[in-house]
Amino acid sequence: MISAARQETLMAVILITGGARSGKSTRAEARARSFPGQPVYIATAEALDTEMEARIATHRARRGTDWIEREVPLDLVPALVATDDGGARLVDCLTLWLSNLMHAQRDWEGGVKALAGALPRLKSPVVLVTNEVGLGIVPDNALARSFRDAAGIMNQTIAAAADEVEFVVAGLPMKLK
Amino acid sequence: MISAARQETLMAVILITGGARSGKSTRAEARARSFPGQPVYIATAEALDTEMEARIATHRARRGTDWIEREVPLDLVPALVATDDGGARLVDCLTLWLSNLMHAQRDWEGGVKALAGALPRLKSPVVLVTNEVGLGIVPDNALARSFRDAAGIMNQTIAAAADEVEFVVAGLPMKLK
Amino acid sequence: MISAARQETLMAVILITGGARSGKSTRAEARARSFPGQPVYIATAEALDTEMEARIATHRARRGTDWIEREVPLDLVPALVATDDGGARLVDCLTLWLSNLMHAQRDWEGGVKALAGALPRLKSPVVLVTNEVGLGIVPDNALARSFRDAAGIMNQTIAAAADEVEFVVAGLPMKLK
Repeated sequence: MISAARQETLMAVILITGGARSGKSTRAEARARSFPGQPVYIATAEALDTEMEARIATHRARRGTDWIEREVPLDLVPALVATDDGGARLVDCLTLWLSNLMHAQRDWEGGVKALAGALPRLKSPVVLVTNEVGLGIVPDNALARSFRDAAGIMNQTIAAAADEVEFVVAGLPMKLK
Repeated sequence: MISAARQETLMAVILITGGARSGKSTRAEARARSFPGQPVYIATAEALDTEMEARIATHRARRGTDWIEREVPLDLVPALVATDDGGARLVDCLTLWLSNLMHAQRDWEGGVKALAGALPRLKSPVVLVTNEVGLGIVPDNALARSFRDAAGIMNQTIAAAADEVEFVVAGLPMKLK
Repeated sequence: MISAARQETLMAVILITGGARSGKSTRAEARARSFPGQPVYIATAEALDTEMEARIATHRARRGTDWIEREVPLDLVPALVATDDGGARLVDCLTLWLSNLMHAQRDWEGGVKALAGALPRLKSPVVLVTNEVGLGIVPDNALARSFRDAAGIMNQTIAAAADEVEFVVAGLPMKLK
């Protein structure tokens, strides 16, 4: 028999949002580690340039070596299903995943809906990191405007499917849901 | 005799702020619909280009057809006074109104003060949508900097005059006042 | 004998963060004035151009003339130590201080760590103003990206060292810590 508390733990979907360098990843790592089992780090970043390589190395140094690591730039739902038998998965981050879908000419709206639909059916916990990008001045170019629109729609859609949502400012989480 | 609770409902001025595509309008529509009477949609947008036309069409499709609709790019206070005899008014949005005032060479500071002064004297509820635009990097050009300063001053001024203020992130409201 | 409440008051380190024109400075002035003694205004801004001159004049007009004023673009820790014998110090703002350190080719990371280390050892209260700059779209140029990364790291570091942290939106504070 699984207790109600244990059941709740197994089903947790947690979305952590915030600005650049707000402490989102550190917070998400702490949340993922709080679950039993070996945590799985699902990186949506690919080391395509030196700036990105440095950022990935910083994250890895902080996280430690006890994580299972996966690089998943595009096919997030299959990766979550394939790792759905152990510790919590940390997906870092959805904003870059969205950008990858767009660059690969994939149907990002379909992808976001499929993720939102898959999350409640997973057995092991998932902690998802995303970015708030819509609180600055309206960008000059149409591409940046449509990206921030897409990111806002994605964040709303995933937040609606999540059990918990936190907004991190200066390393400090505010509970939104 | 009108009960205290009913009286409070009739006099509500609610400001909904947040980033682009944060779910502000959806939240504001729900708040406006919660009041008795036919709701009035006061659009500050004019359909001047195809990007704006598409955005207006999306909002209208979501809202449904049971709203009274007004296009009011500039003269917000007269429009609020003229519709002050029924359901709630939803003003979407103040940031665009501010931009319209500036483009029309109007006195925006006087306009904002006049709106803040008029709001507490209205009988029917008003739900106002605005944008946070000051949480990104300092813009390169002076015009963008002065717009974001003006938007910040407007938001502070209207928030001070409002009965309730909510900050929406990822579709989830945080109560500020 | 100093009561526990008085002791707490004397040791307060308060960080006020928010966007441009969000009402951070007004809030910080109110917090600084709430402590006994003559408040000290530590400006990190230098009046190098007319836009900055106008901004400084606006702040001064609002604040009133009963403040001790210091212009401290770089050496914040010595200035805090030198004024640590009376009323609260208001530092406005850390984001500009960070920018000054970078322009002067100083070690900004060392400077931020030194400030975080010094704050808990001060006897008189300190209210620090900072900006959230990481909630817009990713900036085009690498310099702006590294500045917003540095600002985010600074805000996390100082928030961790502060007794209280507030996030101000539309003039209304949210308590983060």
